[in-house]
Amino acid sequence: MDPLPSWNDGAAKSGILDFVARVCAQGGPDFVAPAERIAAFDNDGTLWCEYPLQVQVFFALAEVKRLAQQDPSLLEKPAFKAMIDGDVKTLMSLPKKDVFEPAFATHAGMTVEEFHANAWRWLRQAEHPKLRRPFLRNTYAPQRELLDHLRANGFKTYIVTGGGIEFVRVVAQQLYGIPPEQVVGSSTRMKLEDGADGMVLRKLPELGSFDDRDEKVVNIALHIGRRPVFAFGNSDGDLPMIRYTLGGTGPRMAWLLHHDDATREFAYDRDFRLSALRDGLDRAAELGIGVVSMQRDWNRVFADGDETPNGGNA
Amino acid sequence: MDPLPSWNDGAAKSGILDFVARVCAQGGPDFVAPAERIAAFDNDGTLWCEYPLQVQVFFALAEVKRLAQQDPSLLEKPAFKAMIDGDVKTLMSLPKKDVFEPAFATHAGMTVEEFHANAWRWLRQAEHPKLRRPFLRNTYAPQRELLDHLRANGFKTYIVTGGGIEFVRVVAQQLYGIPPEQVVGSSTRMKLEDGADGMVLRKLPELGSFDDRDEKVVNIALHIGRRPVFAFGNSDGDLPMIRYTLGGTGPRMAWLLHHDDATREFAYDRDFRLSALRDGLDRAAELGIGVVSMQRDWNRVFADGDETPNGGNA
Repeated sequence: MDPLPSWNDGAAKSGILDFVARVCAQGGPDFVAPAERIAAFDNDGTLWCEYPLQVQVFFALAEVKRLAQQDPSLLEKPAFKAMIDGDVKTLMSLPKKDVFEPAFATHAGMTVEEFHANAWRWLRQAEHPKLRRPFLRNTYAPQRELLDHLRANGFKTYIVTGGGIEFVRVVAQQLYGIPPEQVVGSSTRMKLEDGADGMVLRKLPELGSFDDRDEKVVNIALHIGRRPVFAFGNSDGDLPMIRYTLGGTGPRMAWLLHHDDATREFAYDRDFRLSALRDGLDRAAELGIGVVSMQRDWNRVFADGDETPNGGNA
Repeated sequence: MDPLPSWNDGAAKSGILDFVARVCAQGGPDFVAPAERIAAFDNDGTLWCEYPLQVQVFFALAEVKRLAQQDPSLLEKPAFKAMIDGDVKTLMSLPKKDVFEPAFATHAGMTVEEFHANAWRWLRQAEHPKLRRPFLRNTYAPQRELLDHLRANGFKTYIVTGGGIEFVRVVAQQLYGIPPEQVVGSSTRMKLEDGADGMVLRKLPELGSFDDRDEKVVNIALHIGRRPVFAFGNSDGDLPMIRYTLGGTGPRMAWLLHHDDATREFAYDRDFRLSALRDGLDRAAELGIGVVSMQRDWNRVFADGDETPNGGNA
């Protein structure tokens, strides 16, 4: 049975199947011990749709009005102001870190459990404004098959995301079969409180780690303590993690997903400031990175429900 | 077959065996899903000997002379000076964080791989000055049996240590069967470098996290993302982690190891500044924490090789 039915025959699909087979061939020259079979996946734009804004930024849009009422000084920050104004154009023009700041601020003051409940309340019903489908149905079918195939062959699959670690943990098990301890992401600082209800962790309005670019590698070392042998991303923010993966000894494989499918999803790369793919495209061949074309390599995009053409207007 | 042969019959042993059986009894009132069976163990003094100084502090003692030659200003710091002078008394009187500082400084400037190699060079041959045995033979047999028993029953075992995360990772698989991704500990900041040999992480002379007391809980949330159901420590530095563990819903169990065996190991608790057990002893019953007596509950102390009486002089 084909473990990757949503992948079209071609170099990407056969490359992946061949790599997994080689890594698992006991006694073969490319055998990798099961404990070393670590696969790292970006989330936004790699496992689910991130256009025109990351899911967590949409969440922040919904949350931020409540915050600005409590603290009007927030409106002095461009990303907050743009959110309140519903000004997606301005948001898309700001640096990624600025745009995520309100998303992290929406954690502040809550316990981890409260944040999970709050995020889940939104996630379970919120819809993507262009695709007109629940965000939870915007995961990519081919990637879920790939995660399953890797795990069936002894890989431990990790998410290494620029998004909030607690935000992604709310859905990672359900959507991707990835448990919380295998989610690495951006984080706020936390404080332990010893209250009437026992010990709880409260999220502080202070960034702990912005898990993007080099920081993804730092956090892989901190959380996993091993160099992955397989990595999958979709933007220049994933390049350090991909290059770190490919830089180890023994068999290695890494991919970048190219969003070139304006009919079924969106077409964007170099000019998408929030998650540009520029160096990755220019240097993929030189660096030994494979490029997966959504249009060419996937016969199905979304894991859940019908494909709804979005009108082609990225 | 008895899974805990180094444990004497008594409340501790039967309590542990009973807890594990209840948690695994499908359909029973205390059943815990395998994914939620998280066990957190302190390392120093819980899994291996930490007296009169933690193993990593002995390592720092060996390393710090080299550092002070490069940077004589280090001698202005009391812990560095005491180390150079071999002044264990002064070291034992300083706050834990100060004493660990040189240990973290011995990482600085090295890549993670270089640090591993350097630590291993020392660890594989260094001897405990009082017990006159290699440090690697100072792990506790009863605890290794307990780790095995938990894992055989679907638990995921973690180390949550005040020691350096990379230091403990060097030996955790070999000594305890715990892979690097299940070691949580203190850490230095790191920097990704893109050099001639590819991408490497270099350790900076800057503390990232001192994984003691409340910070153990914060790091459990960050790395594991679940509240453990079982915890084992030996000092007040472990109390927050233990109380956090016990504070969850459903069946919970936590233990403190009491070092009361001056014949086979050491006897110390309230006055051991580097890792005092004071509140833990006073409040164990009130907080629902079990106390394991090394003398009473263990018929064997060290996992590897003969017991050598140490003369009883803690």
